[in-house]
Amino acid sequence: MFTHLKDLQFEAKPDGPDAAFARRLQEILGGKWGEMTVANQYLYQGWNCRLPGKYKDLFLDVGTEEMGHVEMIATMITRLLENAPLSLQEAAEQNPMVGAIYGGSNPAHLIHGGGGALPVDSVGVPWNGSYITASGNLLADFYLNVTAEAQGRLQVARLFNMTDDPGVKQMLRFLLARDTMHQNMWMAAIEQLMEDGLEEMPVPDAFPDSSELTEQFGYTYLDFSPGTDASQGRWASGPAPDGKGQFRYDDSPRAHAPEPVLPPGDPRLYGTNPGMVGEVATKVKSKFT
Amino acid sequence: MFTHLKDLQFEAKPDGPDAAFARRLQEILGGKWGEMTVANQYLYQGWNCRLPGKYKDLFLDVGTEEMGHVEMIATMITRLLENAPLSLQEAAEQNPMVGAIYGGSNPAHLIHGGGGALPVDSVGVPWNGSYITASGNLLADFYLNVTAEAQGRLQVARLFNMTDDPGVKQMLRFLLARDTMHQNMWMAAIEQLMEDGLEEMPVPDAFPDSSELTEQFGYTYLDFSPGTDASQGRWASGPAPDGKGQFRYDDSPRAHAPEPVLPPGDPRLYGTNPGMVGEVATKVKSKFT
Amino acid sequence: MFTHLKDLQFEAKPDGPDAAFARRLQEILGGKWGEMTVANQYLYQGWNCRLPGKYKDLFLDVGTEEMGHVEMIATMITRLLENAPLSLQEAAEQNPMVGAIYGGSNPAHLIHGGGGALPVDSVGVPWNGSYITASGNLLADFYLNVTAEAQGRLQVARLFNMTDDPGVKQMLRFLLARDTMHQNMWMAAIEQLMEDGLEEMPVPDAFPDSSELTEQFGYTYLDFSPGTDASQGRWASGPAPDGKGQFRYDDSPRAHAPEPVLPPGDPRLYGTNPGMVGEVATKVKSKFT
Amino acid sequence: MFTHLKDLQFEAKPDGPDAAFARRLQEILGGKWGEMTVANQYLYQGWNCRLPGKYKDLFLDVGTEEMGHVEMIATMITRLLENAPLSLQEAAEQNPMVGAIYGGSNPAHLIHGGGGALPVDSVGVPWNGSYITASGNLLADFYLNVTAEAQGRLQVARLFNMTDDPGVKQMLRFLLARDTMHQNMWMAAIEQLMEDGLEEMPVPDAFPDSSELTEQFGYTYLDFSPGTDASQGRWASGPAPDGKGQFRYDDSPRAHAPEPVLPPGDPRLYGTNPGMVGEVATKVKSKFT
Amino acid sequence: MFTHLKDLQFEAKPDGPDAAFARRLQEILGGKWGEMTVANQYLYQGWNCRLPGKYKDLFLDVGTEEMGHVEMIATMITRLLENAPLSLQEAAEQNPMVGAIYGGSNPAHLIHGGGGALPVDSVGVPWNGSYITASGNLLADFYLNVTAEAQGRLQVARLFNMTDDPGVKQMLRFLLARDTMHQNMWMAAIEQLMEDGLEEMPVPDAFPDSSELTEQFGYTYLDFSPGTDASQGRWASGPAPDGKGQFRYDDSPRAHAPEPVLPPGDPRLYGTNPGMVGEVATKVKSKFT
Amino acid sequence: MFTHLKDLQFEAKPDGPDAAFARRLQEILGGKWGEMTVANQYLYQGWNCRLPGKYKDLFLDVGTEEMGHVEMIATMITRLLENAPLSLQEAAEQNPMVGAIYGGSNPAHLIHGGGGALPVDSVGVPWNGSYITASGNLLADFYLNVTAEAQGRLQVARLFNMTDDPGVKQMLRFLLARDTMHQNMWMAAIEQLMEDGLEEMPVPDAFPDSSELTEQFGYTYLDFSPGTDASQGRWASGPAPDGKGQFRYDDSPRAHAPEPVLPPGDPRLYGTNPGMVGEVATKVKSKFT
Repeated sequence: MFTHLKDLQFEAKPDGPDAAFARRLQEILGGKWGEMTVANQYLYQGWNCRLPGKYKDLFLDVGTEEMGHVEMIATMITRLLENAPLSLQEAAEQNPMVGAIYGGSNPAHLIHGGGGALPVDSVGVPWNGSYITASGNLLADFYLNVTAEAQGRLQVARLFNMTDDPGVKQMLRFLLARDTMHQNMWMAAIEQLMEDGLEEMPVPDAFPDSSELTEQFGYTYLDFSPGTDASQGRWASGPAPDGKGQFRYDDSPRAHAPEPVLPPGDPRLYGTNPGMVGEVATKVKSKFT
Repeated sequence: MFTHLKDLQFEAKPDGPDAAFARRLQEILGGKWGEMTVANQYLYQGWNCRLPGKYKDLFLDVGTEEMGHVEMIATMITRLLENAPLSLQEAAEQNPMVGAIYGGSNPAHLIHGGGGALPVDSVGVPWNGSYITASGNLLADFYLNVTAEAQGRLQVARLFNMTDDPGVKQMLRFLLARDTMHQNMWMAAIEQLMEDGLEEMPVPDAFPDSSELTEQFGYTYLDFSPGTDASQGRWASGPAPDGKGQFRYDDSPRAHAPEPVLPPGDPRLYGTNPGMVGEVATKVKSKFT
Repeated sequence: MFTHLKDLQFEAKPDGPDAAFARRLQEILGGKWGEMTVANQYLYQGWNCRLPGKYKDLFLDVGTEEMGHVEMIATMITRLLENAPLSLQEAAEQNPMVGAIYGGSNPAHLIHGGGGALPVDSVGVPWNGSYITASGNLLADFYLNVTAEAQGRLQVARLFNMTDDPGVKQMLRFLLARDTMHQNMWMAAIEQLMEDGLEEMPVPDAFPDSSELTEQFGYTYLDFSPGTDASQGRWASGPAPDGKGQFRYDDSPRAHAPEPVLPPGDPRLYGTNPGMVGEVATKVKSKFT
Repeated sequence: MFTHLKDLQFEAKPDGPDAAFARRLQEILGGKWGEMTVANQYLYQGWNCRLPGKYKDLFLDVGTEEMGHVEMIATMITRLLENAPLSLQEAAEQNPMVGAIYGGSNPAHLIHGGGGALPVDSVGVPWNGSYITASGNLLADFYLNVTAEAQGRLQVARLFNMTDDPGVKQMLRFLLARDTMHQNMWMAAIEQLMEDGLEEMPVPDAFPDSSELTEQFGYTYLDFSPGTDASQGRWASGPAPDGKGQFRYDDSPRAHAPEPVLPPGDPRLYGTNPGMVGEVATKVKSKFT
Repeated sequence: MFTHLKDLQFEAKPDGPDAAFARRLQEILGGKWGEMTVANQYLYQGWNCRLPGKYKDLFLDVGTEEMGHVEMIATMITRLLENAPLSLQEAAEQNPMVGAIYGGSNPAHLIHGGGGALPVDSVGVPWNGSYITASGNLLADFYLNVTAEAQGRLQVARLFNMTDDPGVKQMLRFLLARDTMHQNMWMAAIEQLMEDGLEEMPVPDAFPDSSELTEQFGYTYLDFSPGTDASQGRWASGPAPDGKGQFRYDDSPRAHAPEPVLPPGDPRLYGTNPGMVGEVATKVKSKFT
Repeated sequence: MFTHLKDLQFEAKPDGPDAAFARRLQEILGGKWGEMTVANQYLYQGWNCRLPGKYKDLFLDVGTEEMGHVEMIATMITRLLENAPLSLQEAAEQNPMVGAIYGGSNPAHLIHGGGGALPVDSVGVPWNGSYITASGNLLADFYLNVTAEAQGRLQVARLFNMTDDPGVKQMLRFLLARDTMHQNMWMAAIEQLMEDGLEEMPVPDAFPDSSELTEQFGYTYLDFSPGTDASQGRWASGPAPDGKGQFRYDDSPRAHAPEPVLPPGDPRLYGTNPGMVGEVATKVKSKFT
């Protein structure tokens, strides 16, 4: 169960309006790596988590914080939309910069949202549930969460360089700091999980190695292009990070199965089948009424 | 530029048909973490990669291999669809197990695909480009690639337990082995990238720490629920994995900004504004024709 | 800013597992009219609301409650997925009913979610942001909210008749009661809004009637099919609900503009244009290199 | 069955081209609340309607009219796209205003549509079937239809303020008048339905109240945030609009169920389970090949 | 403008209910190649058509007929949904066949649609506007329309073999006949268009050949795999169908440009750039605040 | 199995950057008719093809080539994004043309892709699997492939007129030449298929004509609008292209079935049913708890 405080976790007030930047800022609200994604991802991971205690709390605490970030960014976007040019005429009466704002803005912000934030990305594509994963395997999901915070912090840092507005920059600084924390936190969670003996690499470690074609394919780099540049990386020789094998390098990987030949399909599906010619075809065709 | 060999990288032949399992196998073909995702993700990461040599090759080699996995799984699915029950009547004449196959299958496999594989997931939702990310920041993307291989191997391992067919299981063993390699490989790539001094944590490390509200928010765990279970994890105290700070724990995070109050909106957007009552409203309303 | 309590608003514990019903229950979690929709819709309406005080609170209070409903239903679904049949073989060893569960379940629940709830509907299509609207006009949005609660309660009532599980039925009873409250609440909010003189029908009432072709088209029912059954409804005669006009009935509506004839398109777009024949065509074609 | 008249219901001719406005006008053609939505929604409601006579006719008449609006708006958009700047060079040779048109237009209008209307919204996202609902319960759907016309009229009114083109404005006036009629009409339909004794509030009224936890939760406002502003609305005290209960106000709603603890998951799904450490884990892991 | 007749173009009455087949029949209602696609595609092609007279009429006539097919199939689906099993319990009390129906049905048909047709495909994915194209070039679109009718008739023929219900089969026979007509019709339209001298192959023929690298690449089959099977087809030698060139066959196509090397990216985007090591990196990093 | 050459099939180097054109060029990369579509469509058609030899090779050869086109266009787009204006401020300091570029660009190119190509169309909507069809019937799919190349060449030709950049124009010329070849090739494949006696018109020809309502509906043009313009086309009289019938023209098509009347729905779904009034309703309502 959740409760709501009316105050914001951090200030979300621009020094001036900028409808084109409002559209761009949507990326970290409703984009693939935005706050709606991390909020929902961590909450679903928490609700589906089978380990009571610190891990479940971790997911739900951070998911709850991210809901507050959704709120802050939505508020910031709404404020950035103040005084948006309603029409080309209006923009034209001012100056080319207002024309660029008009051209670079998301029309749905005004027509659909009436000047408010929308659950969409910087293009205007709606956020959707496929952006999140809660797999039940905490090691797989912790790596995803590291990624989410890394991609998120990257996007915030890019947006930081896309505006001169001091108020916007200050909120972005706050988000950068929290993304720093969250990257570290999910890295620490990986260490903790391994220390607790719950999971190890490769994911899922509970799947028995003996059932794999491990000997032949489990540690071999296959180079599918001419040249051997790829052999110079750590992935081509030496011990593998999972501590269970040694990397090998294969510069001319071969096929292990012949060209597949499919049998004729069910004639009732009317695919083009081999031998569907002449009398055979006529007979087959006459069978279905 | 690509070339195609007619042979398969590995055999993709079931011992018998199973249309319901064919639907399930689609998850690792056209699902969020399936082979279409990794193939396209690595190729786009390679095409956009600004470092010639081993890193660019790494992306393009592995992306090219994954195209061959797409081919193998598509072939397997088409073979699993042989003899699929076309109708309830047909299923009913056989036995309840065929009824379950009918019920558990994806009708589009027959109606749209004519008994062939489709670029969709286990539900039947089409694969889409938002599943992939090529951010330009290799550290962020390498973590995503570790995740993709971890989620992928997890799904293959689950599917391994969802069938008794020896031919299917053999192909899944091959995929498990390659996913083992690829998890290790992307982990090794992270180490290599750091050794080469190109990136470090947190992502993006080139963003200057001093521009963050780092001191206050960069290393503090905020516990947004009652109880202190979360304080017991490594994320709440001790050195942070990025080696740049010490974790702190805050069991009662506070708001840092007052309740936001928005100004009235542009009346030409007809949102509900404060003070839109009585005479004021009448006047405002009469302004727009 | 939000905080999270570990306890649930209401119990979410089935008496037994039922993976097929888990799939169906997803409709009120991640479907168009499910809890994710109402939670996000009310929160966005609140964040974008320009009236401080009771209206803004109303949105944010109820949105926060709905987040707790998302949590309850996600928990219920995860519990319903216990002991789901992993394979047809497993189902077949048991009985036809388990076969029907297998056939009627969502494979992604196990393959992607590892036995946990997903942000999708009863088909398996991901929830998306286009399901919600926060238009800024409170009267339009209150009517949408009445609808959302009506459609939501309807779906819960249908699901109530699709299971015999006492634990599931008890949680659905709770949701029905809250949907009853929320329908009433949004109806009351419409009354309050009108009493406060902020909005009236038709939406948006601030748009001046005189700028419409009101006299001719604003209150006339146009019957586009043979027969006059439609004339028997209240919408064809008598005073209109907005108190501003009288309904009229037109049993043979006519067109008011001639067949549109479009000019030739820009030849550089290579659409098929009138007169693109013979020498003219040749000349036009030779113009572009 | 339908027939088509070549004439338009109303004139759809702009005084001049404006590709940027053409993009914006798409919102009421292929947006969530656009004409494709109402046309399809009313037609599906009609086809699924089980009441022959005035109600079924109402749906099908109005759905048919809306098809004619789709036609008018598509025609208008095609005309607005005349002389669209094909390139930045072309725009640059003219003036900044043409640059803003170029920036603010939808490139797919020219590249995909060849200068014709598309079934997309103002962003360019394709219309989809999830925008419509035909639930079978007429009261729920009538409220949705009131909403659709309210949101639609709101968007038309906003677009009216986004252009100075007299021809466009005249068509919008016609649409505003019809949306006025349709809002009134669906309100009248709600009254008619109740008068006919077919449905009443809350939806679905046929669900017996006694099966709800009505006494405790059916009429209580739960305030999930500090402060009591929300208690000042009509939703917090007095009789509820359904005439069946009295509103109550609860300023500190409590949880009614303990923190949920999930049992370990099926180990064959490789989620992270409690107790998956040490010897236990080793045994579990060795079980699956 | 459209008008609606209450009668159906053809009877749409099954002999008995079958909810699983109702789900499958949705493919030709709301699937990629279903009736909603052809109806909307032809109407948009007509509205955007710049040739008044027979071509514009052709589009609009057939689009209008397809709207009547949408109506027939929607009606048929609603009737097939009668007596659908509401629950597993209900199905289990009957027999395994009812279990298969339960498993093979679309739950949204009952939960969302209340037993009515939905604008979705056989999986349950909503129809969307990207299914249709109206390019403005009639030759390109006529070929698409031939395809749409071919794919449509193929799907109807497959569905014909998926049911024993005489009423359903009779409606499918009608649709097959109309799809036969429409395939022929669009083929005839291609002939007419060429006879009228409006378009010829390749599309767009107005693009001047001289601006292409025609000599080298315009008529050469490039064989990207080992073996020369592909050289045996008509596409590898002899005159090309456009009458403008001779096919050639190249069994070892070569690359015409060197490996692309991208310059470093804008450092403000924080991508991983070459040379971002040591002191250089430090300097670059210190530049942005 | 695939291999990758580091060289490009053709040069993909613009003479200068143009972020707005980069967005537009995405249409032929990740749009409905772009290179991702044809690459995947031909590969899936090949993998599902049941005819070993020239046809299967044809699909796989051309699909493999198209993967190389995806690579070229992705490379071109990345290069066009060089020096994209990061902010409105940056654009404003330069000139109105840069403002138009800013307004006309896709923000996700920088924020999400870090200056690299994305798997999206010119609007920014992600590519998805529903764009492709591999039906198993080669005649249906060959017509689709003709269409795909026709629409593709049309879009390339339009883009050719949307830029002055010599490098871009040169790559487009190459693509135009290949699209010329591919249109011819798929036309030749249709001829080959018919010569081989494998398929004929209408699709699917194996469906027996006698099972259709052919006599009455198989060759008749139904004119659903006033006027007889449509009778002047070849589709209204004379022999049909399939050589099996004679076109007829019907200027007043009639309905063949009465208005459908649906029975009451299952009361447990709470749809609005006829006769749900007075005592009957009370009784029905009291039945469900």
